[in-house]
Amino acid sequence: MNPNSNRGFASDNNAGIHPLMIDAINRANQGHVIAYGDDIYTKRAIETIKENFGESISVFFVLTGTGANVLGLSSLTRPFNAVICANTAHINTDECGAPEKFTNCKLISVDSPDGKLTPESVKPFLHGFGFEHHVQAKVISISQPTEMGTVYTPDEVRSLSQLAREYNMYLHMDGARLANAAVHLKMGFKEFTSDAGVDVLSFGGTKNGMLFGESVIFFNPRLSEDFKYYRKQSMQLVSKMRYISAQFESYLNNKLWHTNASHANNMARLLQKKVSGLPHITITQNVEANAVFAVIPARVIRALQEKYFFYIWDENKNEVRWMTSFDTTPEDISGFVDYLKKLLT
Amino acid sequence: MNPNSNRGFASDNNAGIHPLMIDAINRANQGHVIAYGDDIYTKRAIETIKENFGESISVFFVLTGTGANVLGLSSLTRPFNAVICANTAHINTDECGAPEKFTNCKLISVDSPDGKLTPESVKPFLHGFGFEHHVQAKVISISQPTEMGTVYTPDEVRSLSQLAREYNMYLHMDGARLANAAVHLKMGFKEFTSDAGVDVLSFGGTKNGMLFGESVIFFNPRLSEDFKYYRKQSMQLVSKMRYISAQFESYLNNKLWHTNASHANNMARLLQKKVSGLPHITITQNVEANAVFAVIPARVIRALQEKYFFYIWDENKNEVRWMTSFDTTPEDISGFVDYLKKLLT
Amino acid sequence: MNPNSNRGFASDNNAGIHPLMIDAINRANQGHVIAYGDDIYTKRAIETIKENFGESISVFFVLTGTGANVLGLSSLTRPFNAVICANTAHINTDECGAPEKFTNCKLISVDSPDGKLTPESVKPFLHGFGFEHHVQAKVISISQPTEMGTVYTPDEVRSLSQLAREYNMYLHMDGARLANAAVHLKMGFKEFTSDAGVDVLSFGGTKNGMLFGESVIFFNPRLSEDFKYYRKQSMQLVSKMRYISAQFESYLNNKLWHTNASHANNMARLLQKKVSGLPHITITQNVEANAVFAVIPARVIRALQEKYFFYIWDENKNEVRWMTSFDTTPEDISGFVDYLKKLLT
Amino acid sequence: MNPNSNRGFASDNNAGIHPLMIDAINRANQGHVIAYGDDIYTKRAIETIKENFGESISVFFVLTGTGANVLGLSSLTRPFNAVICANTAHINTDECGAPEKFTNCKLISVDSPDGKLTPESVKPFLHGFGFEHHVQAKVISISQPTEMGTVYTPDEVRSLSQLAREYNMYLHMDGARLANAAVHLKMGFKEFTSDAGVDVLSFGGTKNGMLFGESVIFFNPRLSEDFKYYRKQSMQLVSKMRYISAQFESYLNNKLWHTNASHANNMARLLQKKVSGLPHITITQNVEANAVFAVIPARVIRALQEKYFFYIWDENKNEVRWMTSFDTTPEDISGFVDYLKKLLT
Repeated sequence: MNPNSNRGFASDNNAGIHPLMIDAINRANQGHVIAYGDDIYTKRAIETIKENFGESISVFFVLTGTGANVLGLSSLTRPFNAVICANTAHINTDECGAPEKFTNCKLISVDSPDGKLTPESVKPFLHGFGFEHHVQAKVISISQPTEMGTVYTPDEVRSLSQLAREYNMYLHMDGARLANAAVHLKMGFKEFTSDAGVDVLSFGGTKNGMLFGESVIFFNPRLSEDFKYYRKQSMQLVSKMRYISAQFESYLNNKLWHTNASHANNMARLLQKKVSGLPHITITQNVEANAVFAVIPARVIRALQEKYFFYIWDENKNEVRWMTSFDTTPEDISGFVDYLKKLLT
Repeated sequence: MNPNSNRGFASDNNAGIHPLMIDAINRANQGHVIAYGDDIYTKRAIETIKENFGESISVFFVLTGTGANVLGLSSLTRPFNAVICANTAHINTDECGAPEKFTNCKLISVDSPDGKLTPESVKPFLHGFGFEHHVQAKVISISQPTEMGTVYTPDEVRSLSQLAREYNMYLHMDGARLANAAVHLKMGFKEFTSDAGVDVLSFGGTKNGMLFGESVIFFNPRLSEDFKYYRKQSMQLVSKMRYISAQFESYLNNKLWHTNASHANNMARLLQKKVSGLPHITITQNVEANAVFAVIPARVIRALQEKYFFYIWDENKNEVRWMTSFDTTPEDISGFVDYLKKLLT
Repeated sequence: MNPNSNRGFASDNNAGIHPLMIDAINRANQGHVIAYGDDIYTKRAIETIKENFGESISVFFVLTGTGANVLGLSSLTRPFNAVICANTAHINTDECGAPEKFTNCKLISVDSPDGKLTPESVKPFLHGFGFEHHVQAKVISISQPTEMGTVYTPDEVRSLSQLAREYNMYLHMDGARLANAAVHLKMGFKEFTSDAGVDVLSFGGTKNGMLFGESVIFFNPRLSEDFKYYRKQSMQLVSKMRYISAQFESYLNNKLWHTNASHANNMARLLQKKVSGLPHITITQNVEANAVFAVIPARVIRALQEKYFFYIWDENKNEVRWMTSFDTTPEDISGFVDYLKKLLT
Repeated sequence: MNPNSNRGFASDNNAGIHPLMIDAINRANQGHVIAYGDDIYTKRAIETIKENFGESISVFFVLTGTGANVLGLSSLTRPFNAVICANTAHINTDECGAPEKFTNCKLISVDSPDGKLTPESVKPFLHGFGFEHHVQAKVISISQPTEMGTVYTPDEVRSLSQLAREYNMYLHMDGARLANAAVHLKMGFKEFTSDAGVDVLSFGGTKNGMLFGESVIFFNPRLSEDFKYYRKQSMQLVSKMRYISAQFESYLNNKLWHTNASHANNMARLLQKKVSGLPHITITQNVEANAVFAVIPARVIRALQEKYFFYIWDENKNEVRWMTSFDTTPEDISGFVDYLKKLLT
């Protein structure tokens, strides 16, 4: 793909690194430290995460969002288990089968127009327990915000964690964009993760201004007993870990997560506001985080993609996804919407 | 482990990032580019690698050295194959079973005091072809330099690639420290890789001054047809790839690989020179790259580790490994040797 | 479960072994033969299968139906591929995740009320080709007869094999009860397998009177090049293979497949006929093979299960499955229907 | 291979089925029983096994010896673990990588001229515990009798189980030919399995007169909690289980295990006796079970194999393996030795 502007709306990971993160890397670039995480930067970063998520947790840094999800699920499952997720879940559609490859579990996908699971939509899949011909459902996995840009309320999360507990299962949360959810909910992280019964969380930074760096947080440390082996065996143990750790520490202590996610969410709202009055356009999802989903005429999609890079979400429906990021400017949006208007007339 | 100096000789990845690499990251930090490698920095980095390794190759960036090795092996094997390697090989001893987990292959380890394989040591393991009860040997995997700090000559590599070809097998090279081998051999990379018959190469940068970044090079591009899927499924596809690519481009174009590896190798020689006359110390391997192996009295090991961090290689023999890095200073070595002398007396 | 009659309608593998199969085993029990299939019985059985399925095929015997399916799929896929199947498919619901565990592929399940796939129902899942974030769809897998007791016509099979070819995919057929389909279609096996474009077939015998024994048939032998290694590595290579082979030879040469399947199908029709007029009972699927699906009142299910063993197919709908087998008698059915009538009044 | 006599010395699974086993199958062939093991034959067979191995065990039937070994190991390990075994172990050399494929563990092989492990030979491999870069050794696996035809005494077993316990590991025993060991030791099974500290045992019957059938015995039932799922997911759950169960019941209750193994062992002694005086022949292992290992001139091997089928164990040493079985006759041996004598002169 080769649109002639490189400031598109394809994904928040098309953006670069926030200067504060470069600073953090530079500051950590002093002398020798033990590789693989036995260093002071990692120790401090974990302390900082505990301040934000609770003291009795265990925290591990990994390299990619897919790695965070797969490793969290590995710790919760055996190969004969199943993971229940929305059909739109990143683990189901965008990880090239990594969850199946690494955990050997079956993913059971639940139809969900807004990207959310509910106890009602999950329950029909909770059967066959103890029957050896069936995979044994063990995890409910949700994304916060969802891949459709919607955000679970703490009560919605809680209803799923209660269901999980009832069936001796776990609740996993993919929080690659967790900051965008927190900003929307106007809450700290705890209220809708540990306080709402999440067992294991992928807490990402790459999509919100870091160079790289994701973390896996266990709210029940007992579940993480074998994590360090799973991490190394899955090739997710970073050698010079201090440079992920230093970013996370600064990301939280400087509230960069909030600044960046607020901005990205606001830009999505602005985009929504500007396009919602236009003819032949239907916004298809509530804009709660930093994504806007819209149905627009096929010929407009094609023309628009010549200039801007973004993904077609559903070819059959002519539905597209526009993502904003921490460095999207109001001018980016004006330029985009002006061009779109021209194409629509 | 908590030695009271943080400038130890444990590993070259305890060192930090070379300033040129930070510069490269900063220069790439401009605006948006498409994530996952469809960007100009990656294109240029691949071109640069081709200038150094040959035009008709295919190149992929990954996140870790273990990832580079495992993904290269995945592309060459089916689950019923076997990979033959030295018993000291990184894939055999230091990757927590990642090769077995991801490729499902058996690793057949060959005893090797100096870390090298030879046709003579490999041949006894080349049997059972076509017999379904046996794993089918498909890859000979060597490390250059070896984990014992020794370096294969091009002829030594060639003798193994010829053996591989004779048996319809492939030759894989783990080049996590390839620059250190090239400097020792006083050669460009091609002479002892593609020209010597290597099929797939892990070419690393992290241990020689990069923040992170490894690459997998296929000298026969047909072998890499499915690589992009293996990379994503193994969680080794980096989102903001430009920051690995930019480092590789600068690493090669600025000859940083040579500067850094020369320095590290020289520091190892210096260390060797300074300790080789000392009483109760035996250097156990030829010092050809940036590692020094030595047998020293157990009580000295213990005392030395209180101040300096390094690994005991073989507890039974009281053999230790000291690694130098691009930022080891002559003062580091003097300090270390002085302290060692004191302990020896 | 402990119903007080042991002649139930749970599954055709609750029946025993047909006397002809015991005879075949006895006849093969002469002296020594080379284990693992290099024997005259296996040679002859393969010849017999070729007479029935075509000369240019390759044939392998395995131990279980799950083994046959998983090994066929293994030969067609790499770990990053996907297999498309009906949501009711045996590979999707009754093999405890064996396909995912052994092939590492994702199974994509398609809703199908009658157990069949159609080009229209499959097409929406054929996307993301070449996109490394997506699993790459490679196989369409169908069951003949389906798990709902319906039978594909040769044209229906052909429409799916054409779709598969169009997308560079393969068509796999689970024929654990293939004989029941052939009898219903009044055809030989070729017409609706190789002639209709099936690439790989699981051809089973256990559910139709054998002691044990399943086979995997490749209509394109090139696809089976590595099969023998996959079979051994997946623990499906039987030591005393002659006793499976001898059964298959007799099963085909004595037309036992036809005798047994005809009988089982007829018994299913009889059961259908006898219950279809009863109050509060709805037959929910066409009875084409040896299964009858019916919705009956919940209290009747419970009472019936006290005396007869059978499975509840869908608890939410009160739908049950009754299977007949080669040794079901008209008296079994009369007794069952009489008892059912009593419960319904 | 096509030797012109089919009564060779290749393997005990080249023999057929003992008539008592056919009888057992016939007797179980009455009416319907629930498939997959919920039947009276399986219940009785498990009771019979408990009478022989101890009451507080759990027992599962599987299809193949490889299946029994791999499933036992699966229950004891996680993917980052290692299994320590003799280099000659069946799991290491004859299962085409099934253990690695299914458990994902590394197999660490220990050189052993007589097929046995000892605490002294195992200890050097017990290191790296808690270090995430290393696989974590979790199981010591031994074969009884060994693949070299030697038999562990109860004390030898005990010394390994104590070592295992010391390191928080388990002791696994491959007893594909357990009866041959018991006969040699003149003991019941308990004395050298549960009483000697074995945790999990593969107890086979196929090599001693059964049609098919192996079992996995857990002396600590807690370790088998997930076994039924592993068995189904690994395609080792037999549909018509009663026919394995019925064989095992008769095998034990009629002491067929003893009759058959005694005979096979005696025939091996007879063979040993007859060849041990011959020129140019060296018996290389103690003949304790039903195997004879011998070094003989290469030209004699070739000539002998034209008439008799057997395996060359070590091509470099001209070492061959001759196995006897429950149906080997003294005439088989006379004929073989006479022919051998002729070739030697």
